[in-house]
Amino acid sequence: MTAYDPDNVFARILRNELPAARIYEDDDVLAFMDAMPQGDGHALVIPKMPSRNLLDADPETVSKLFRAAQKIAVAARAAFGADGVFIGQYNEAVSGQTVYHLHVHIVPRFKDVDLRRHAEGGFADPQVLADHAARIRAELDKNEA
Amino acid sequence: MTAYDPDNVFARILRNELPAARIYEDDDVLAFMDAMPQGDGHALVIPKMPSRNLLDADPETVSKLFRAAQKIAVAARAAFGADGVFIGQYNEAVSGQTVYHLHVHIVPRFKDVDLRRHAEGGFADPQVLADHAARIRAELDKNEA
Repeated sequence: MTAYDPDNVFARILRNELPAARIYEDDDVLAFMDAMPQGDGHALVIPKMPSRNLLDADPETVSKLFRAAQKIAVAARAAFGADGVFIGQYNEAVSGQTVYHLHVHIVPRFKDVDLRRHAEGGFADPQVLADHAARIRAELDKNEA
Repeated sequence: MTAYDPDNVFARILRNELPAARIYEDDDVLAFMDAMPQGDGHALVIPKMPSRNLLDADPETVSKLFRAAQKIAVAARAAFGADGVFIGQYNEAVSGQTVYHLHVHIVPRFKDVDLRRHAEGGFADPQVLADHAARIRAELDKNEA
């Protein structure tokens, strides 16, 4: 396992050097739409604390990350009227990790709709992603109210 | 979403009504080998607290569950010399959930070895599972020492 690279794409999103369709942010985590979604509403949650993946993360970071993932999953399900939600977290290339900053995939699932393979559909329309982020954010706001 | 069924398979494993190749147990969680592994070392972690899945779980349960999943992932990687680890958590049938007690899949991944589809290989040999559980437990013990 190699060291954490501070110039990975998600680190650059955290530093606002790259755009993202942001859903939610607090002191510990950032949630945003996957730019190459495997399905409608495919969101990511990342900790602000740098970790390569789950295998080197601080346990407190893991707690905060998955508690945030849970909130996003509940909100995304409601926002899209999904029938279920897939949660995936990939460690190292062999398991599908492509960006080496710890992240959790939150993918709403719908009856009779297969997931696209990662990157199969290319980059989604940024306006669509911004709209999807707003829909999830609206549900989060309801849940916090 | 229907209510929690206290007679689901994992609830019965928790009550010792069904056997399992147990890896680790504490006041909050139980880890054991998946009886129909998608690959060598495929483990599950479940909370003792009843929840159908992530969508109805108590946040504190989520913290404890994923912190335990992290420990198992690190130990399983070492125990099997894996190249990476897949973490999957499925909510509702459409996303692949087959047992309706919240659980996290921890699947060591190896270069050039595809995952089997769930249930494709049928039930694994209980003696092999017990051996795999012992290998992961030995790594956990090292990490706790």
